[in-house]
Amino acid sequence: MIGIALLGAGRMARVHAKAIEAASGKLVTVFDVVKPAAASLAAESGASVSGSAEEALHHPGVEAVLVATSSDTHVDCIIQASKAGKAVMCEKPLAPSLAEAQRCIDVLGTNARNVFMGFNRRFDPGHAALKKAIEAGEIGDLEQLTITSRDPNPPPLDYIPKSGGLFRDMMIHDFDMARWVLGEEPVSIYSRGSCLVDPEIGRLGDIDTAFVSLVTQSGKQALILNSRRAVYGYDQRIEAFGSAGMVISDNPKATGLTRYSGESFGAPDRFRAFFMERYGESYRLEIETFLRGVVEGTPAPVNAFDGLRTAYLAEAAAASLQLGKAIELKANCEVTWT
Amino acid sequence: MIGIALLGAGRMARVHAKAIEAASGKLVTVFDVVKPAAASLAAESGASVSGSAEEALHHPGVEAVLVATSSDTHVDCIIQASKAGKAVMCEKPLAPSLAEAQRCIDVLGTNARNVFMGFNRRFDPGHAALKKAIEAGEIGDLEQLTITSRDPNPPPLDYIPKSGGLFRDMMIHDFDMARWVLGEEPVSIYSRGSCLVDPEIGRLGDIDTAFVSLVTQSGKQALILNSRRAVYGYDQRIEAFGSAGMVISDNPKATGLTRYSGESFGAPDRFRAFFMERYGESYRLEIETFLRGVVEGTPAPVNAFDGLRTAYLAEAAAASLQLGKAIELKANCEVTWT
Amino acid sequence: MIGIALLGAGRMARVHAKAIEAASGKLVTVFDVVKPAAASLAAESGASVSGSAEEALHHPGVEAVLVATSSDTHVDCIIQASKAGKAVMCEKPLAPSLAEAQRCIDVLGTNARNVFMGFNRRFDPGHAALKKAIEAGEIGDLEQLTITSRDPNPPPLDYIPKSGGLFRDMMIHDFDMARWVLGEEPVSIYSRGSCLVDPEIGRLGDIDTAFVSLVTQSGKQALILNSRRAVYGYDQRIEAFGSAGMVISDNPKATGLTRYSGESFGAPDRFRAFFMERYGESYRLEIETFLRGVVEGTPAPVNAFDGLRTAYLAEAAAASLQLGKAIELKANCEVTWT
Amino acid sequence: MIGIALLGAGRMARVHAKAIEAASGKLVTVFDVVKPAAASLAAESGASVSGSAEEALHHPGVEAVLVATSSDTHVDCIIQASKAGKAVMCEKPLAPSLAEAQRCIDVLGTNARNVFMGFNRRFDPGHAALKKAIEAGEIGDLEQLTITSRDPNPPPLDYIPKSGGLFRDMMIHDFDMARWVLGEEPVSIYSRGSCLVDPEIGRLGDIDTAFVSLVTQSGKQALILNSRRAVYGYDQRIEAFGSAGMVISDNPKATGLTRYSGESFGAPDRFRAFFMERYGESYRLEIETFLRGVVEGTPAPVNAFDGLRTAYLAEAAAASLQLGKAIELKANCEVTWT
Repeated sequence: MIGIALLGAGRMARVHAKAIEAASGKLVTVFDVVKPAAASLAAESGASVSGSAEEALHHPGVEAVLVATSSDTHVDCIIQASKAGKAVMCEKPLAPSLAEAQRCIDVLGTNARNVFMGFNRRFDPGHAALKKAIEAGEIGDLEQLTITSRDPNPPPLDYIPKSGGLFRDMMIHDFDMARWVLGEEPVSIYSRGSCLVDPEIGRLGDIDTAFVSLVTQSGKQALILNSRRAVYGYDQRIEAFGSAGMVISDNPKATGLTRYSGESFGAPDRFRAFFMERYGESYRLEIETFLRGVVEGTPAPVNAFDGLRTAYLAEAAAASLQLGKAIELKANCEVTWT
Repeated sequence: MIGIALLGAGRMARVHAKAIEAASGKLVTVFDVVKPAAASLAAESGASVSGSAEEALHHPGVEAVLVATSSDTHVDCIIQASKAGKAVMCEKPLAPSLAEAQRCIDVLGTNARNVFMGFNRRFDPGHAALKKAIEAGEIGDLEQLTITSRDPNPPPLDYIPKSGGLFRDMMIHDFDMARWVLGEEPVSIYSRGSCLVDPEIGRLGDIDTAFVSLVTQSGKQALILNSRRAVYGYDQRIEAFGSAGMVISDNPKATGLTRYSGESFGAPDRFRAFFMERYGESYRLEIETFLRGVVEGTPAPVNAFDGLRTAYLAEAAAASLQLGKAIELKANCEVTWT
Repeated sequence: MIGIALLGAGRMARVHAKAIEAASGKLVTVFDVVKPAAASLAAESGASVSGSAEEALHHPGVEAVLVATSSDTHVDCIIQASKAGKAVMCEKPLAPSLAEAQRCIDVLGTNARNVFMGFNRRFDPGHAALKKAIEAGEIGDLEQLTITSRDPNPPPLDYIPKSGGLFRDMMIHDFDMARWVLGEEPVSIYSRGSCLVDPEIGRLGDIDTAFVSLVTQSGKQALILNSRRAVYGYDQRIEAFGSAGMVISDNPKATGLTRYSGESFGAPDRFRAFFMERYGESYRLEIETFLRGVVEGTPAPVNAFDGLRTAYLAEAAAASLQLGKAIELKANCEVTWT
Repeated sequence: MIGIALLGAGRMARVHAKAIEAASGKLVTVFDVVKPAAASLAAESGASVSGSAEEALHHPGVEAVLVATSSDTHVDCIIQASKAGKAVMCEKPLAPSLAEAQRCIDVLGTNARNVFMGFNRRFDPGHAALKKAIEAGEIGDLEQLTITSRDPNPPPLDYIPKSGGLFRDMMIHDFDMARWVLGEEPVSIYSRGSCLVDPEIGRLGDIDTAFVSLVTQSGKQALILNSRRAVYGYDQRIEAFGSAGMVISDNPKATGLTRYSGESFGAPDRFRAFFMERYGESYRLEIETFLRGVVEGTPAPVNAFDGLRTAYLAEAAAASLQLGKAIELKANCEVTWT
């Protein structure tokens, strides 16, 4: 079993610790600047507590490092772990800003290909089946892609200012999905955002309802819809339309129960509650893929370059919103707007 | 256009008059023992009123006769119309009792093949698509058939005593569906009935909740479930399971609307209300089939023999319920029970 | 019964003639510049042939005029019929260009409110149920609207040059749907188009794959996706997301049949083939609404101003595509782009 | 963590060992008459191997015993473990025959209430949600219950003679579901069976296609349909119809993927393959319920009396098939047939 050092002991670190347990990994040591958090998670997992990231990396038996600290320390952790010769997996995003993401790539060089970026949705069985169907030619050439992604409820208001904004915090997942499903980089982006859910979010300088459109060189079109609130539950759908058909990865239901009454005529059961229930399986499959890669020496299927490109799209989306115009995208992630 | 004499001016006669209008027939004359009913329907349709069934049959321009009188006069009307050399279509049932149905067959002889029995559900687009799929071999050999048939509400209590009972009044349609889909006569029948909807129905000597099982010579199995009440609407489904697959003819919804809210997660629109909305199209297609047969001289696809056999099944189901045992069915509709 | 003069005898005129027959109208006379087309349609409908539009308008018994000529003559026909004091219904579009639509409004003045614009999809039972649900408050405040509209196959290539382009010819329906469902005029539009279905369409100067985004003053967002080809059939869906829920008007299936086999695990029946099958009912309900309005003297629920505004949106969409930028929309349909 | 002795190391024992691992139990020791099987399973689980059932029961740290040996040894194992004062869970069936099941009850006395019978389907999230909805009054009074249960493929032919026949081997699960959902014992049973899947099964004296009908004292009706083969996958559905509505626990799909192509118009993903994939979660929840009961000292929610009554129903179904008649059922499981 691969020994893992977990950097971070917050919410996402706990999601990964649980996934490690269900997969074939062994959590060896935990580090967090908040010592009690590290202690508590370590105790639950039978792991040791490390006094620093450096100590964790060099803990005996550690072959792989999972970075799940706060976003602004991701890059430093990755560089450190990479220098220590460890296999690295990093929770999204790669960095809180495009500049920082670019710095990571610059420092890592070609080694950036080996950093496994934690875009877990690629491992969701439904989304993965959609991707597989497209690769198998089921829909011919992809032409229009629609990604709908709505949270059940907005985050606490105090999270908004440090979130980086909807595009960097929430739509980042959908940017990754779009690039992955399109199989081709977008060359143009246009975004719009509104504050319709909670005016406080607007007062804090963010939006809660947004769409982005992307167009690729060959003319493929992608639309992304986001909302911070959906009363009917966590709404996560991908629709891929092509020359030979369409595939939709729809929201799985909690069970196969269907209700009929004086008011309902075949009402299915509720969606899975939020990301831990909806995407729990994807976290497990993600870590299994990472660990298998470590064992087999295969390259990361989603790496730091993907982290850079999603950061670029988020930054461009924010710029498009602010400037009120479509923005041209460059292959080298150059900032073309002012 | 084929000129039609309509015998009867009650509820079902009106359904047929409307279907005639939508199809390519011409209603020439109407007769009903209730003169005002005949007068009113004739006026709406631009048809004349006849003073007797005999007069209606011989009215100039009448080529075809549609019998939609009360059940106890069906056989006499059919025999009269048949003797007059007219094409005959008869609303179900053929007769209120097995004995009366047998008398009809005896009098008509081979001409019974030409009497078009109004089992309209055979012409429902969904049920017809199911039958067509089976004939096309989509499910291989049919093995198990489940027919669910539930009314939205029980009929008025004063209708119960004259209805002939649930098996003869309501399940008669499902007996026809079962024989049609099975493509093979049942050799055994077992029925059970309860009074769960309204105890008054029980006091009137009838049941409101029932099932029947049928088995054919080759071992195919059919189950029929009936209820006089379904709060979620008119529930009409057929499931045919076979060696190579399954086809289900499910309840069509009023529209393609789907609702999501805090309580519903993809709730489809309501079913079509009752038989006139649900099976309206089937009445139109039925009369078109009848009229085309008259023009082209082709035999009735469902005839008086089918009327006899469904009467036999209804009688046997009632006997099984009363005797508490399975009953053997004969090819010649012989009564084997006592 | 309201007597109707039908101007035009082409494909759409025939759709309307059939709808008039199913509704409670009476087709009195038909005019078309192609005399044999008029003669043939008139013969089938028991109507007379008129030698000119003027003659048709003044034909005895004509109370209402249905304009279904070629688009470039719509405005003249409407003005003529309106001057003759007849009730007018006009097949979409109001005019082939924004300038021509504006001329119509200028000439008609407030009378433009009485011209019934034939945006039939408003009368589709599914779309109408969606609108009704929104008006009933089922989804709270509408926030994001997604309209997907894909034809089964592209039109013949020789139709492309005279079509006015995808936005004016095909998306015009979706612009009307968007305005109708939003209940608020868009203030901004952005469009993109590609030629992915058939390069010949591109060579003829048109696109076959497009999206448009609209934003209203209050920040509501609408996305429209069009494709000239969908191999799985005529794909017509509306999804309306709001603060209290979501409603989707999905594609109705041909029947309620569902198939299960070694390869399919609950496959529903095909969609309705194309607009005549899919929207046939809407044409009947549209004409019934029009005729009821004539009898009751109620204003047209969708009128020439709606025709003008959809023409404006189509023109702006084309400009956005050409200029590669978002375009600001004015309440008075002023052209702000160059 | 509760220490568990596992009696048996065959297919079902492995299913349970996996469930124990995912739940909060600890597998301490394994016994099987086939020593290498016990050794291999013990090795994988970090448990010891016991030389006899007796030795396993008394192994240090064992608080609970899970009986998953061959059916004919279930009763002896249960009695032994019960005498040793251990908590007992037994894989279905309680016994291979009604007589043997009755012997178990006679020996255990009231202690039979404490033996947890492994009818895992009660713990399936979909079926459990159906039961919960009924208990919450969602469908009012249950009136008609339809259970469809079809395996993807028949078992190997050499399994047929030792299976006890379809009613005892396969439908036993559905008998338990029926009793559980009905909430009332049936007083009458009628069964029919055919050999339609493989004539070899018939030659071995068994059937492969069957239905059973049950009626309770109050008139509730239950129908069970079984087939040994369904080409579209493992088909496990329960439909409960009542005075205030209907709930259906339908087959969950592998993912939320839906396919559209020239031939498919919304085809969902395949079913979960067979019982380990379909009911895997139920085995985990079952063992968790068992272990929680041990900790909290609560009675088994499904116990040896349920094992006895399902054995009685299986025996009566076999008798009904052989005798060709409905059979009266007694509260005390008395055999009324000859």
